[in-house]
Amino acid sequence: MDHLRENNGQNIIQTAEILCIGTELLLGDIVNTNAAFLSKELAGLGINVYRQSVVGDNPARLTAALKEALERADLVITSGGLGPTGDDLTKEMAAGVMGKKLVLHAESYERIKSYFARRQVPMAESNIKQAMMPEGATVLKNDFGTAPGVILCNEDRTKTIIMLPGPPRELIPMFENEVAPYLSRRTASVLRSRNIHLFGIGESMLEIHLHDLMEKSINPTVAPYAKEGEVLVRVTAKGSSERECFALCDQMVEVIRRSPVGEYIYGVDVGSLEAALVTSLIERNKTVAFAESCTGGLLSKRIVDVSGASSVFVGSIICYANSVKVNQLGVPPSVLEQYGAVSEETALLMAAGVRQRLGADFGISITGIAGPAGGTPEKPVGLVYIGLSSEEEERCLRLMLGGRERAYIRLSASSYALNMLLSELKKQNRT
Amino acid sequence: MDHLRENNGQNIIQTAEILCIGTELLLGDIVNTNAAFLSKELAGLGINVYRQSVVGDNPARLTAALKEALERADLVITSGGLGPTGDDLTKEMAAGVMGKKLVLHAESYERIKSYFARRQVPMAESNIKQAMMPEGATVLKNDFGTAPGVILCNEDRTKTIIMLPGPPRELIPMFENEVAPYLSRRTASVLRSRNIHLFGIGESMLEIHLHDLMEKSINPTVAPYAKEGEVLVRVTAKGSSERECFALCDQMVEVIRRSPVGEYIYGVDVGSLEAALVTSLIERNKTVAFAESCTGGLLSKRIVDVSGASSVFVGSIICYANSVKVNQLGVPPSVLEQYGAVSEETALLMAAGVRQRLGADFGISITGIAGPAGGTPEKPVGLVYIGLSSEEEERCLRLMLGGRERAYIRLSASSYALNMLLSELKKQNRT
Repeated sequence: MDHLRENNGQNIIQTAEILCIGTELLLGDIVNTNAAFLSKELAGLGINVYRQSVVGDNPARLTAALKEALERADLVITSGGLGPTGDDLTKEMAAGVMGKKLVLHAESYERIKSYFARRQVPMAESNIKQAMMPEGATVLKNDFGTAPGVILCNEDRTKTIIMLPGPPRELIPMFENEVAPYLSRRTASVLRSRNIHLFGIGESMLEIHLHDLMEKSINPTVAPYAKEGEVLVRVTAKGSSERECFALCDQMVEVIRRSPVGEYIYGVDVGSLEAALVTSLIERNKTVAFAESCTGGLLSKRIVDVSGASSVFVGSIICYANSVKVNQLGVPPSVLEQYGAVSEETALLMAAGVRQRLGADFGISITGIAGPAGGTPEKPVGLVYIGLSSEEEERCLRLMLGGRERAYIRLSASSYALNMLLSELKKQNRT
Repeated sequence: MDHLRENNGQNIIQTAEILCIGTELLLGDIVNTNAAFLSKELAGLGINVYRQSVVGDNPARLTAALKEALERADLVITSGGLGPTGDDLTKEMAAGVMGKKLVLHAESYERIKSYFARRQVPMAESNIKQAMMPEGATVLKNDFGTAPGVILCNEDRTKTIIMLPGPPRELIPMFENEVAPYLSRRTASVLRSRNIHLFGIGESMLEIHLHDLMEKSINPTVAPYAKEGEVLVRVTAKGSSERECFALCDQMVEVIRRSPVGEYIYGVDVGSLEAALVTSLIERNKTVAFAESCTGGLLSKRIVDVSGASSVFVGSIICYANSVKVNQLGVPPSVLEQYGAVSEETALLMAAGVRQRLGADFGISITGIAGPAGGTPEKPVGLVYIGLSSEEEERCLRLMLGGRERAYIRLSASSYALNMLLSELKKQNRT
């Protein structure tokens, strides 16, 4: 093995495996979000993950999986099996694989006792098990539960096991606060990424335009990712410092901005369409109100997902029934009769109505046929109109989102609506 | 090996492993929902899954993972790596492990050609690769993409590999339409479940009440599952027919209904709170309208998630700004001033206002502090009021959902609102 050595004598970690433990995962009762979270974090640290595994709370199978993983990788991160019950075996099996005994960890014992005291719940004797630790291990405190985490290395530090609790709300802060700083001291270089967010272009079209860049770029690398109706291009640089990495990334971001896909970029490292929109509205001191029919509150829900939306989002009218379109938004019954609820005319009147009645700078409306029922040859499932109204102008976008399921059509329609307003705000900025 | 033999001479499948293939899984860019889906389906067929694994598109690592899995289990189901590019290796490696050659499958070739013709897109030469199949394999047609699935057995049928495409929208229908019927012919008995949905009781309290039942019941088994703010009790029976299984399940469901947790049951096999509410409203021919503040459209979005909601859901007013509470719902400014937007008084007026103005039988309102900002000592983050208004009565529920993140508080508040109306409807039925 040609392991590199760090200054402090600890071995550099280059490869890792993730081993999640839990019968509920094997029964398919929960989705393994921990594996995805840990993999992404390790990739960000420049550590290669070649395998993820899931096993149940079975001593023989857990020990076998741990041994195999340790043979292949420098680091094994486990999640789950640290609880107080007899089913929770991770520490016992990991200690066995590393040839260590379990001893009482006084600080953990006190911490668990006080956790129960704060909640005014009596502590069961079985919780003492959670304070038993492999000798020589580093204990990671758990601020959101009773099971501490554990870092355990073999004698020459060529193999490391990091044990984390199963619930994501305990695992994620423990990783971010304690494991990530530890691992960054045990990796050879820094990796940093910029995420370029695009909307309105498909992944295959993106690959056609960026093919050469993706093939030829080594540092930084350029890779596209499809993400629920949008596309993300991740630019990742390796270097000796964060600053060096970001400088390399930002040069590449500029190259991509000037490419044919540049016009589809709605932001860099902005998180989501809704977050980018809230930021853009705050910058321009503008407010918005929504009139939603087929999306039924999804668009509003998405903007309220963003903490701080209250300064720009006034409210919405969810006009699922036509009576609400008439009485709350002022769409004349004659328009609904002549053009239908799913039409450009109705969409524009909905947008203007919600803007005026709720007193916002912008009104955005969505009306469409999300299916599975309700489609006709002239107005098939997937037909959606998005209206935009401001004091200066009104516009309507007609979309055909058919061939997909109801949830997709609604999500996609809400994304187009967010993007339509975001584009409008950028345009106003330029003029 | 003491494999049982079925009438048709095919070996019975008792154990399985799931092997998902894809670099995007190892990078954490997507969450492995396929593993959860397949595990749940296999559990439903009575096939034990002892391990799930993920590897990348690497010939040596993929072959090693396939071999190991086949040594431990009767069946290995793979997802991913069936596409047209050079990176897609699953069929090649599986054929190698089983000692088979790849040959052109004429029907698949025609199907892929016509798939491109329908979309008026030229077919790349590389797509021919997708029509190459291991000799002797059973080919599973793909109605939602170009990559067919494959069932491949060894000579004495003690080992089976089933290869499925990676995208869930291709994998799920292929499993349901072709793999599940195939596997049910290769399993020894039938397994069927009833899901009892409860709301308003925690998992730990549920375990206290059902502990004896859970410990002692062998057929059917009784197991609790936490599920985003609700609890599910799954009753699973094994038998020789579906009818026998459901008879066993239904007896146990009755026992649980008569236990102390019975009052928290809102339905059996109803899918979700929102689906149960839509059904209940349809049965009683009643309509509902919502007034949402802190949940910002989430409650409305959830009811519209249910196909068929249009017959009972009129619409909503999302009154994020106080001006909307005043102008669209008729909450007097003096009430907002005296009691605040987050108060029983405001909640009741919001519920009555939306019911009257939108013309529904029931009005439900939510106003609260979802955080992270906006809390005070008297009105902390997590304080939520839910109002209910009908022609006959009005009621208000006060909740303290603090100590959790914004998304959880909003989700939980919307669940309480759905449950409040569902309980009201049941109560009316009894009187």
